[in-house]
Amino acid sequence: MAKNDKNFVERITPMEDDFAQWYTDVILKTELVDYAPVKGFMVIRPYGFALWEKIKDFMDERFKAAGHMNMYFPLLIPESMLKKEAEHVEGFAPEVAWVTHGGEKKLEERLAVRPTSETIICTMYSKWLNSYRDLPYLYNQWNSVVRWEKTTRPFLRTSEFLWQEGHTLHETKEEAMEETYQQLEVYKACCEELLAMPVIDGIKSESEKFAGGDLTTTIEAMMHDGKALQSGTSHYLGQNFTRAFDITYSDREGNTSYPYHTSWGASTRLIGGLIMTHSDNRGLVLPPRIAPIQAVVIPVAADKNPKVLDVTKEIADKIKAKGITLRYDDRENYSVGFKFNEWEMKGIPVRVEIGPRDLENNKAVLFRRDTLEKETVEIDNVVDRVVELMEEIQQNLYDRALKHREERTSVVSNMDEFKKALEEKPGFIKTMWCGSAECEAKIKEETTATIRCLPFKQEKLGDKCVYCGKKADKMVVVAKAY
Amino acid sequence: MAKNDKNFVERITPMEDDFAQWYTDVILKTELVDYAPVKGFMVIRPYGFALWEKIKDFMDERFKAAGHMNMYFPLLIPESMLKKEAEHVEGFAPEVAWVTHGGEKKLEERLAVRPTSETIICTMYSKWLNSYRDLPYLYNQWNSVVRWEKTTRPFLRTSEFLWQEGHTLHETKEEAMEETYQQLEVYKACCEELLAMPVIDGIKSESEKFAGGDLTTTIEAMMHDGKALQSGTSHYLGQNFTRAFDITYSDREGNTSYPYHTSWGASTRLIGGLIMTHSDNRGLVLPPRIAPIQAVVIPVAADKNPKVLDVTKEIADKIKAKGITLRYDDRENYSVGFKFNEWEMKGIPVRVEIGPRDLENNKAVLFRRDTLEKETVEIDNVVDRVVELMEEIQQNLYDRALKHREERTSVVSNMDEFKKALEEKPGFIKTMWCGSAECEAKIKEETTATIRCLPFKQEKLGDKCVYCGKKADKMVVVAKAY
Repeated sequence: MAKNDKNFVERITPMEDDFAQWYTDVILKTELVDYAPVKGFMVIRPYGFALWEKIKDFMDERFKAAGHMNMYFPLLIPESMLKKEAEHVEGFAPEVAWVTHGGEKKLEERLAVRPTSETIICTMYSKWLNSYRDLPYLYNQWNSVVRWEKTTRPFLRTSEFLWQEGHTLHETKEEAMEETYQQLEVYKACCEELLAMPVIDGIKSESEKFAGGDLTTTIEAMMHDGKALQSGTSHYLGQNFTRAFDITYSDREGNTSYPYHTSWGASTRLIGGLIMTHSDNRGLVLPPRIAPIQAVVIPVAADKNPKVLDVTKEIADKIKAKGITLRYDDRENYSVGFKFNEWEMKGIPVRVEIGPRDLENNKAVLFRRDTLEKETVEIDNVVDRVVELMEEIQQNLYDRALKHREERTSVVSNMDEFKKALEEKPGFIKTMWCGSAECEAKIKEETTATIRCLPFKQEKLGDKCVYCGKKADKMVVVAKAY
Repeated sequence: MAKNDKNFVERITPMEDDFAQWYTDVILKTELVDYAPVKGFMVIRPYGFALWEKIKDFMDERFKAAGHMNMYFPLLIPESMLKKEAEHVEGFAPEVAWVTHGGEKKLEERLAVRPTSETIICTMYSKWLNSYRDLPYLYNQWNSVVRWEKTTRPFLRTSEFLWQEGHTLHETKEEAMEETYQQLEVYKACCEELLAMPVIDGIKSESEKFAGGDLTTTIEAMMHDGKALQSGTSHYLGQNFTRAFDITYSDREGNTSYPYHTSWGASTRLIGGLIMTHSDNRGLVLPPRIAPIQAVVIPVAADKNPKVLDVTKEIADKIKAKGITLRYDDRENYSVGFKFNEWEMKGIPVRVEIGPRDLENNKAVLFRRDTLEKETVEIDNVVDRVVELMEEIQQNLYDRALKHREERTSVVSNMDEFKKALEEKPGFIKTMWCGSAECEAKIKEETTATIRCLPFKQEKLGDKCVYCGKKADKMVVVAKAY
């Protein structure tokens, strides 16, 4: 709303008119984010950062419960180090920001602003690891990474983003695989339990996997517009990096061995997913568990009966005492209508309104943001009902998103059906694939949709490849993606 | 201990022989930190990072309790933006790392890896702020900054470090000043209550203040070797930046005004302070509140009486149930002597040992790391005694550090006394100063000691400047510093 704000949003564009504009309007108008002076970079504003803090807390607690510890590796990586693993450097080199001068001197070697930290972490692990007794290495870091992107959109794809990257080492392949799956489960739980965002978990195809890894597992969510959002990936890296970086240890038999390696990451992109899963044309819709403010209490027309203030204040305090984050909004210089709009736009799950008439009848009005419905309850029941609504709204948002995904998922068996489905009902396509990179590339070329994953939960939808018609035993989910 | 570790520490150098080497030995051997491949950068290892997490949690909770919210600003700042506030750019330009290439293209304008974020934050605040109703702006961010340093030492001075930077805007000078002092109080509380590290709070001289600010407040701690460590600074920036960046708002009278501005920061440097305040020639000594592991229970000679395992395990569980972070060390492939050494080196505040003989007498041995003393207690009293020791050790370490500072503080009234005191009892010098930059510069030139601060708690130690002998009404603390 500031004077010289080029990003000022008068009114949120309806998503039916222009989905991309709707998204941009929502995130700017609700002050989650702003564009930074350097193109492709974003500023995460306090209300947006509060979402990230909740995501971070959720994951960090689970990482630690599974024995992981955090650490911090430097921002800058020498060019020569980045080049040690061939596929890896090929994957990231085009996106690297280079530091060439330090202080007033030109550096002898260019330094990459980390696009991810496998190479520097492996260099240090190689120095530290000695014996099988030191394994497993279960470490993680929360940081920011830079990847020079051509087309960017806040949270979804930016030249800098916040994330965590876990990097673990194990004695056996089995243990490393187990870690890979276990950490994907944390991401899945974060999406489903915290963000009320259902996801499909599975394996990436060879051409979509992490550069330098053996296997990439992923979770994929469906957005309002039917597009997929890759929401977290967990990689089994085998011994590719441990060999390239000479990470060895003395094993139980006294031999020198290379450990097995995983890495896994989830980022601020999840905030984009949260918005494109639940929000509407009025603004944000936040599931209660992620909402920085879970309920707002608004005294109405207190000038006509000051008792309204006492009663609402008391209710507000009681709701807070239940562990609910609450805003008591008795600001005098704003109208009730303005307040209703503001908190609706900001996605507060529940609003409690009490005015003089309500008070006479010993009632309060509860407004829920997910359904936009109002209900009238006895004043004595307000606190309990607000507590109940937290769980109800959380569940309803999850159910609604799941229903949307199911409605927008088509099963097809040939490319005609494929294209027709994509056209008529943009969303996920479930079909069979022979496994060839050629068919995969052709599908992408003809439809711009990509194989999002081979779901862990495979279904038998026929036995012929959707593209070439040859024998196929892989069920895939295909979609256009962010 | 790894095979190819150039930083391998066989034995910690006694601090009396070589204080700098002692410090380096301690932080490497206890695996707090390691040198990164790029000179001047550090890797914070899990045990070191756990200390930072506790510092961060302590401060973050207090920041939020006082109404601050976190946010995130981009890593990269355009050169032109950095240059907007003249004194500021002069202060930081020599230390900036420059990004000149993004992806495979040369950038049109060089981008600074942030050495601090005033300039980019002010640019955005200028865009956002509109009305007095929006004030105060109470925001903070946790991030890493890069300052190209010539001489570095892990935690104390590195080319990249982790910190927080708070940036607030206020309607009045009084409010901004109050914020400045209030945030310094948080740093003081963190040092004294969490790290058991007494500090002197005061104001920096003009020549030592923050580049571009009006007033810098600081807390200064004394290390084992008598040197000072600046441990946190809080700046009142007046309207210097708000004018340079055209941050205006419509005030209560409807006029366009510039808000008053503060910034404040504390960093991973605090970990260096923690070590140089308490640790000894055996390794780390950690105050219980900051210790990642607060107690260790070690069963001794359990092969001779397996009941030792049951009893120690039960005690360990009971101690944990009291909210104490505990390691139960029943590893079989390590000797008891090895374990004792390892946990002593790592600074665990309390060790509980129980062997077959102890069991017969219904006793346990408690070892406290701060005094290196052992005490024997009834097994039934172990849990309560461990809980008590947490507070006792925390307090003892604080008292010891304060006593050390008092013993190493001299009061002088002329430069002969000054030099003699510095020579005979390296530490803090309390004296009077006339306030002239010239005297300050001369003192530094002749002794390498600098004015650390003008303590808030002023004492009348005479009325003549220690250097020029002219009238002086400022009591200062002078010391050599990290």
